[in-house]
Amino acid sequence: MTTSTNLPAGVSQNTFNQAVSEYAAIVGNDNVFVADESMSPYMKAYIPVDEKLYAPSGAVSVSSVEQIQEVLKVSHKYGIPLWPISTGRNFGYGEALPAVPGQLLLDLRKMNKIIEVDPVLGTALVEPGVTYAQLHAYIKEHNIPLWLSVPGPGPLVGPLGQTLIRGEGYTAYAEQFSACCGMEVVLADGQVVRTGLGGIEGTSAWQTNKYGYGPYLDGIFSQSNFGIVTKLGLWLMSAPESYEIFTISFPLYADVEKAVDLGRRLKLSETVRSPLLIASTATGMALAGVPRSVIKPGPGALTADEIQAFAQKNHQPTISMTAALYGTKDQIAAHLKFVEKEAKAAGGMLLHGEQLNVLPEKLVHHFHDMFTGTPDLQEFALLNWIGGGGLIWFAPICPTRGSEAIKQIDMMKSLAAEFEFDFIDAFFLNGRSMVHLFNLFYDRSNEDQKKRAYAFFEKAQATFAKAGYGVYRSNPAFMKKTAQVYGSAQMDLNRRIKKALDPKGLIAPGMSGITIA
Amino acid sequence: MTTSTNLPAGVSQNTFNQAVSEYAAIVGNDNVFVADESMSPYMKAYIPVDEKLYAPSGAVSVSSVEQIQEVLKVSHKYGIPLWPISTGRNFGYGEALPAVPGQLLLDLRKMNKIIEVDPVLGTALVEPGVTYAQLHAYIKEHNIPLWLSVPGPGPLVGPLGQTLIRGEGYTAYAEQFSACCGMEVVLADGQVVRTGLGGIEGTSAWQTNKYGYGPYLDGIFSQSNFGIVTKLGLWLMSAPESYEIFTISFPLYADVEKAVDLGRRLKLSETVRSPLLIASTATGMALAGVPRSVIKPGPGALTADEIQAFAQKNHQPTISMTAALYGTKDQIAAHLKFVEKEAKAAGGMLLHGEQLNVLPEKLVHHFHDMFTGTPDLQEFALLNWIGGGGLIWFAPICPTRGSEAIKQIDMMKSLAAEFEFDFIDAFFLNGRSMVHLFNLFYDRSNEDQKKRAYAFFEKAQATFAKAGYGVYRSNPAFMKKTAQVYGSAQMDLNRRIKKALDPKGLIAPGMSGITIA
Repeated sequence: MTTSTNLPAGVSQNTFNQAVSEYAAIVGNDNVFVADESMSPYMKAYIPVDEKLYAPSGAVSVSSVEQIQEVLKVSHKYGIPLWPISTGRNFGYGEALPAVPGQLLLDLRKMNKIIEVDPVLGTALVEPGVTYAQLHAYIKEHNIPLWLSVPGPGPLVGPLGQTLIRGEGYTAYAEQFSACCGMEVVLADGQVVRTGLGGIEGTSAWQTNKYGYGPYLDGIFSQSNFGIVTKLGLWLMSAPESYEIFTISFPLYADVEKAVDLGRRLKLSETVRSPLLIASTATGMALAGVPRSVIKPGPGALTADEIQAFAQKNHQPTISMTAALYGTKDQIAAHLKFVEKEAKAAGGMLLHGEQLNVLPEKLVHHFHDMFTGTPDLQEFALLNWIGGGGLIWFAPICPTRGSEAIKQIDMMKSLAAEFEFDFIDAFFLNGRSMVHLFNLFYDRSNEDQKKRAYAFFEKAQATFAKAGYGVYRSNPAFMKKTAQVYGSAQMDLNRRIKKALDPKGLIAPGMSGITIA
Repeated sequence: MTTSTNLPAGVSQNTFNQAVSEYAAIVGNDNVFVADESMSPYMKAYIPVDEKLYAPSGAVSVSSVEQIQEVLKVSHKYGIPLWPISTGRNFGYGEALPAVPGQLLLDLRKMNKIIEVDPVLGTALVEPGVTYAQLHAYIKEHNIPLWLSVPGPGPLVGPLGQTLIRGEGYTAYAEQFSACCGMEVVLADGQVVRTGLGGIEGTSAWQTNKYGYGPYLDGIFSQSNFGIVTKLGLWLMSAPESYEIFTISFPLYADVEKAVDLGRRLKLSETVRSPLLIASTATGMALAGVPRSVIKPGPGALTADEIQAFAQKNHQPTISMTAALYGTKDQIAAHLKFVEKEAKAAGGMLLHGEQLNVLPEKLVHHFHDMFTGTPDLQEFALLNWIGGGGLIWFAPICPTRGSEAIKQIDMMKSLAAEFEFDFIDAFFLNGRSMVHLFNLFYDRSNEDQKKRAYAFFEKAQATFAKAGYGVYRSNPAFMKKTAQVYGSAQMDLNRRIKKALDPKGLIAPGMSGITIA
């Protein structure tokens, strides 16, 4: 047996070896990984510290609920914590790495059945390993008039992980957790619970209603470690007769304020059902795969002022707000009329159809993919910006109020200047709140940049917390600190639920800062 | 001290008296009620058994979180369970009565501050005692362009209770729990938790984003007894430029199938943002306050066939599906065009504007109130149907599929015939599921009718469970049985969370069937 370099806390090499042999008896030798070389596919992560600090002790790949139950028994016996991964590609937030080193990855990728897609009701039931690429192919193959809501890294990641982590997509169902309907969860003691209507024997209604009777439980299995989710129900958007992508452009960076206030009106009137993406020309270029040297060939961090100067010189909008309209042609025409009137009143210029060509071609193509639920790999082009493969996201939640967006931008400007990072931000406007995404690009082989990325995140989180803002996701190096921003009462409540459901703390200790002690 | 006739289990009269004197020391003598006569306002309930079987031991009326914390200490000391009520008007589902007799009502009605309404972001933060009438008056007084989503008994009940019980309203935010954003909860040990972004000190974002970081907790405080919710954040709909109410009418009772399939298309295309109410002419007349003798002067239960015969004879639609469109005049025109085309294809007749006068005048007026978020008392007119003041709702969840609606109607027809109840049902179509509401009218002074109502509910619940269907709410006489329909795994999970958060089971034992043992 090959030795793992990163044992779980308090577990001896002998005990670990014994456990590994028992895991192997459940899943077969081919499905247990402990040697460094066999673990390398799991270790690719973009976190701003040495990946080894968060290294798992190994991985066990399971293919059924029964195997999970057996694996849990072994973990109970030897005190070996399990970090479940669905596709293991939590890009920008730590990928497959556990919050506390030495955990054994519980790899669920082989559980990848599309159990059901209901074309009439617009629902699906999937296993953890199902990817958006797979689900998209299934829907196309069966000519089902439903659209997915996929995130940037769409083909590689899947709806279960994306929903549980409460990620963002692009269509009318962009806030993915809000389209979640029913789960099957394996608790630490092996008990299997189906939430909502899934508790009723022989029901046809599991994916049609989120709530059922009694406490609505789905939420506590998101961003948590209270159980292992093995099936997830989700709602899919009806394919509209037609769609129209539009951009509203503004000349100045400070016009983000106007864009946000306008976007809120468009969204809360439910004229626009997709999220609205507010981004600078530099962010758009980064998404299109343009390297930063095109804007700034020399050294030093790219500032918001420089982005504005570049845009003006090149007759481009500094700020663009992009979204999609869905419906019949008549509905879209009526929506567009409202959008045009409101955009004009806000001092923005409405562009649609051919007029979108003012944006980079690859970006426009990407928008057509994303706003119709078609997975593509375009967002990985972000890694061309500086090269070196390092990217983490600092993503505070911002109320959808122009003045608060400007306040957050000003705070980020100071931080970017202090730690010398290019100012590549964007807002995903969902309604009453937005995710304000700051792209921290760094060269993973450059220790100085790595340290600065860590220092940026740490100070940014503290600075934003002091102003009353918290992030919506964070990478393993920051989970506990993020939880602390949300206060001790929530941490204590989570700890109590954790102890009730997993008294030995065997499932993903440290996830979202939750431990049993 | 006056003697309570219904002590909590295991508590002697002396102990109870001692506790009462300590409660009185906290809230004042005027705010503790134990004598029968002072309790009578709390005892008005429509449950199909003797109300005394579910009688509380008394009530304590609090006016602050601090008083709740002190009251909890006394309850801990003497083992006296507390049944929190916000307005105490859970009409049709047991009103203020506890699931297990002898609990002390924790009356939160004096905590009735509207803490904030944000006209820009469309959010509110309210205390338990705030009623829809109060919030509506506040919004009108301050000229705030927001609309509420009120349930039938709108003026008397409030958003906190209605949201926690996951009730139904009428506007675009009709599924009220889905418009919930952030709670303040007092746990059994007195700890105060603010969920979501409310955990961040000095935040301006609490009501803008539901989720925050880590497990999403709000759901577990709905339809549960895990804590006492003392503040609730909610989202309010932006008042549209215009609205249009429409009805699609069908000649036969069996056309419910077509109506449901049509309604699903209108809803999932997001053309219709309100719920769609599908009701027979008899249900519409009952809502308008017409007594049943107008349709059936003689004895015997009114059947669906008789309703259809009455409608045909009087040139009325047997089945009507009613909803509202919101937006600019252009948007409404485009929506209406789509609705008309789809209605025609489904064999229904679209009526709007003056054409709605085919429906009873009071009903049309009520629709205009409800679909614009204006509380009125019209739904109490249901009690005119037979008189005698008895009404409970049997409300199974039905997937939004015409064939399943017909299946549920057939099951209800048999039950109504067996137990001799008029067939007064309706569907609230929310999207992928509907609430199928059967009105069980009975005369509270008639023991035979009461017994039949109980027997109907019991057999209906069992019959529907066998077919895979569960109800979304139930009255205290059926809470445990309803929970059993949703299965032992959910019950066990709820029990474990309950024990972790309230180990002595002092908050609302029996709510949704949840106890510590």
